[in-house]
Amino acid sequence: MLEALKEEVLQANIDLQKHGLVILTWGNVSGIDRERGLIVIKPSGVSYDDMKAEDMVVVDLEGRQVEGRLRPSSDTPTHIAIYKAFDKVGGVVHTHSVMATSWAQAGKSIPALGTTHADNFYGPVPCTRKLAKEEIENEYEANTGKVIVETFSNKDPLHVPGVLVNGHGPFSWGKNAHDAVINAVVLEEVAKMAFNTVVLSPDVRPIDQYLLDKHFLRKHGPSAYYGQSNPQN
Amino acid sequence: MLEALKEEVLQANIDLQKHGLVILTWGNVSGIDRERGLIVIKPSGVSYDDMKAEDMVVVDLEGRQVEGRLRPSSDTPTHIAIYKAFDKVGGVVHTHSVMATSWAQAGKSIPALGTTHADNFYGPVPCTRKLAKEEIENEYEANTGKVIVETFSNKDPLHVPGVLVNGHGPFSWGKNAHDAVINAVVLEEVAKMAFNTVVLSPDVRPIDQYLLDKHFLRKHGPSAYYGQSNPQN
Amino acid sequence: MLEALKEEVLQANIDLQKHGLVILTWGNVSGIDRERGLIVIKPSGVSYDDMKAEDMVVVDLEGRQVEGRLRPSSDTPTHIAIYKAFDKVGGVVHTHSVMATSWAQAGKSIPALGTTHADNFYGPVPCTRKLAKEEIENEYEANTGKVIVETFSNKDPLHVPGVLVNGHGPFSWGKNAHDAVINAVVLEEVAKMAFNTVVLSPDVRPIDQYLLDKHFLRKHGPSAYYGQSNPQN
Amino acid sequence: MLEALKEEVLQANIDLQKHGLVILTWGNVSGIDRERGLIVIKPSGVSYDDMKAEDMVVVDLEGRQVEGRLRPSSDTPTHIAIYKAFDKVGGVVHTHSVMATSWAQAGKSIPALGTTHADNFYGPVPCTRKLAKEEIENEYEANTGKVIVETFSNKDPLHVPGVLVNGHGPFSWGKNAHDAVINAVVLEEVAKMAFNTVVLSPDVRPIDQYLLDKHFLRKHGPSAYYGQSNPQN
Repeated sequence: MLEALKEEVLQANIDLQKHGLVILTWGNVSGIDRERGLIVIKPSGVSYDDMKAEDMVVVDLEGRQVEGRLRPSSDTPTHIAIYKAFDKVGGVVHTHSVMATSWAQAGKSIPALGTTHADNFYGPVPCTRKLAKEEIENEYEANTGKVIVETFSNKDPLHVPGVLVNGHGPFSWGKNAHDAVINAVVLEEVAKMAFNTVVLSPDVRPIDQYLLDKHFLRKHGPSAYYGQSNPQN
Repeated sequence: MLEALKEEVLQANIDLQKHGLVILTWGNVSGIDRERGLIVIKPSGVSYDDMKAEDMVVVDLEGRQVEGRLRPSSDTPTHIAIYKAFDKVGGVVHTHSVMATSWAQAGKSIPALGTTHADNFYGPVPCTRKLAKEEIENEYEANTGKVIVETFSNKDPLHVPGVLVNGHGPFSWGKNAHDAVINAVVLEEVAKMAFNTVVLSPDVRPIDQYLLDKHFLRKHGPSAYYGQSNPQN
Repeated sequence: MLEALKEEVLQANIDLQKHGLVILTWGNVSGIDRERGLIVIKPSGVSYDDMKAEDMVVVDLEGRQVEGRLRPSSDTPTHIAIYKAFDKVGGVVHTHSVMATSWAQAGKSIPALGTTHADNFYGPVPCTRKLAKEEIENEYEANTGKVIVETFSNKDPLHVPGVLVNGHGPFSWGKNAHDAVINAVVLEEVAKMAFNTVVLSPDVRPIDQYLLDKHFLRKHGPSAYYGQSNPQN
Repeated sequence: MLEALKEEVLQANIDLQKHGLVILTWGNVSGIDRERGLIVIKPSGVSYDDMKAEDMVVVDLEGRQVEGRLRPSSDTPTHIAIYKAFDKVGGVVHTHSVMATSWAQAGKSIPALGTTHADNFYGPVPCTRKLAKEEIENEYEANTGKVIVETFSNKDPLHVPGVLVNGHGPFSWGKNAHDAVINAVVLEEVAKMAFNTVVLSPDVRPIDQYLLDKHFLRKHGPSAYYGQSNPQN
């Protein structure tokens, strides 16, 4: 079942490695079939070099494994929480990419310091609050999803398609698995640039709202004029 | 039309990626045929891996598309403004290379801190002023070109073949598309070195004028003695 | 003798280079056959590109060369001291990987600042004390092992499978040579992330104990639920 | 003439690029035939990808071109000054490798902060004084050699086989062209590590003299015991 989605999710996982965002078995990508309410996700702890489409695991929105001989990623409950709360999201990515993780470890949101940021993230990439002891000890991965959703209570998740989980690392998403990977790539780039910028200029201010508007809106939404026939990226 | 220039511009775009200056569809290179007043430029939002010479777009100096089935880079009006103001320039490059962009985000010019810088840039690589709200909301890309030109009102653009657009990133140029790419490569290297240098020594001073003169002039101009038969690079 | 172990140790040495942890002839991996009390280790100063399984050297736990036409790594006495003191350890790695070595040169332990760290290291990666003059002038490599062991007097070496030798660089270990390499890879990644984190936030605190517990214990020990059938990594 | 030396110098130049120490046409390696008093050096401004052994240029110790259809590196007079003053040196390298150049731009010597440094450099890698205006305007490249030699007035150049030219970049050397390249590689690594170390610990002190002695002398000189049959590296 879901063979096309499995191929797409496999390719997105491989792309994570190709873009230098993951090493070893770190990181995972999933995609959802909204009509059937089924998620395809990377198996837990399997090497990128050996993965095949048939290794992808199918789970439903209650976390029940529907297909696959391998166990799904241990982060599956986080992916599910994101899909449940953000109904336009079609793909989710988690990595431990170095610079985004460093901001997450510092517990700091990545401010919008330039147009590279504004092209894909319409405002700062927020850092979640820390999870409480109880949230960690019970249903940790689901609660990780819960604090992500909480962080977007007053934000459109497709306007800011990524987050830093405090002390942990980045999650990103998009309208499908491929776009979620692109957003993970951009998130790592802007994390690098923001790091360098605050070292050069500790008191730097975010770019002006009108520059943020200009760049985000020339690539996204009804007035977009970047690219060919307005693809999102 | 302009088949040779299309090949040259295609190759220059591919070189941007090869030198690690661009990822995804970021960045663009153009070249101009001064006699005909026509510019060849990368199409907007197309992957480097798939681009062919026939995908390159031809526009005139008023920004009218003369040839090509794809839309030109959304930065085309910036390229045009540069060609119009700097009449010796034959090629223009825009990237979001990490370290040059970090300096642009910090809103700081890159000081001439060593001979690597002096070999290609005869003085600091300037950072433009910020664009005003009106300049961003109307004809943003043309106004980006306008502030670049403004920044060079008292400078020879071939002596300092690059600039940082405040809050955005680097543009560079040269006598042709290839040279513009070389200057983009050097700009990223000197941005890295200058970053490290100011971290090691926050009060570092630019190199002496006579060292700047020596290095720039041994590679450029009538007394050059670097290389074989005085190529610019 | 020990042909399988030689192949495993050769592969682990090659993996060190593949993961970007060593250049030139730096770094070495060994593995032990606990039943026979014999260690297989990389020869000293030999290029990774030219190494073959039959170049691996066999030594006993007293440091006597049992087989091999080449001299063993000059760090052999350090490996031996680790094997003697840590009886669950099956493989040992030494590198001069850039970021872990930078922390060692700073004489600082790497604090547990995130879950990437917690997944493999159950607490800070400690930095040893400096060796005294006498310890350096006589039996330097054995004394390097001695201070490593000393540093773990109140720690389980498989809970924190790595160390920074003050002014020198990292050693890591695991239940076999392959795992020791994985731990060297993770150590370098967390060294990078911790560096960036302290630059962004000089007063950053280690993650909470319950988050450390959660991540380490979901991958290690009887309650592990990461991966397939609980492999260590 | 000198065909073997030309091959060796060509290979050493290619190795510079392979080790990531040079981009574009930056950097150069030479080797000397001490019996004949002839130097083989890279031609000026030629791409590494296109270079052949027959492109290497032969000059004598007075700087006269003895063979070769291309112009020698513009840094030839610096190489000559080094060969004349340091009679054990058989190969010389110049690069603009990023981290060593950053230290040179900061005008700071690289302190011996760890054993990676001590393995090849028996003390800090010194930074020269700045050249005076007259020294730059007349015979600049020869004067660059002069300040290098001056810097080693009380040092054995084979004990510290490299230097930072103030505001410019690193030169290194060795008993032949290959060893000079190895020393350039190590210099860049220790420049990276020292940068990170001083960021982590601004008041860090150099390693103890006895640790410096131990590491340098276990690899170099009559008591060396690193490697097979005591090669220098």
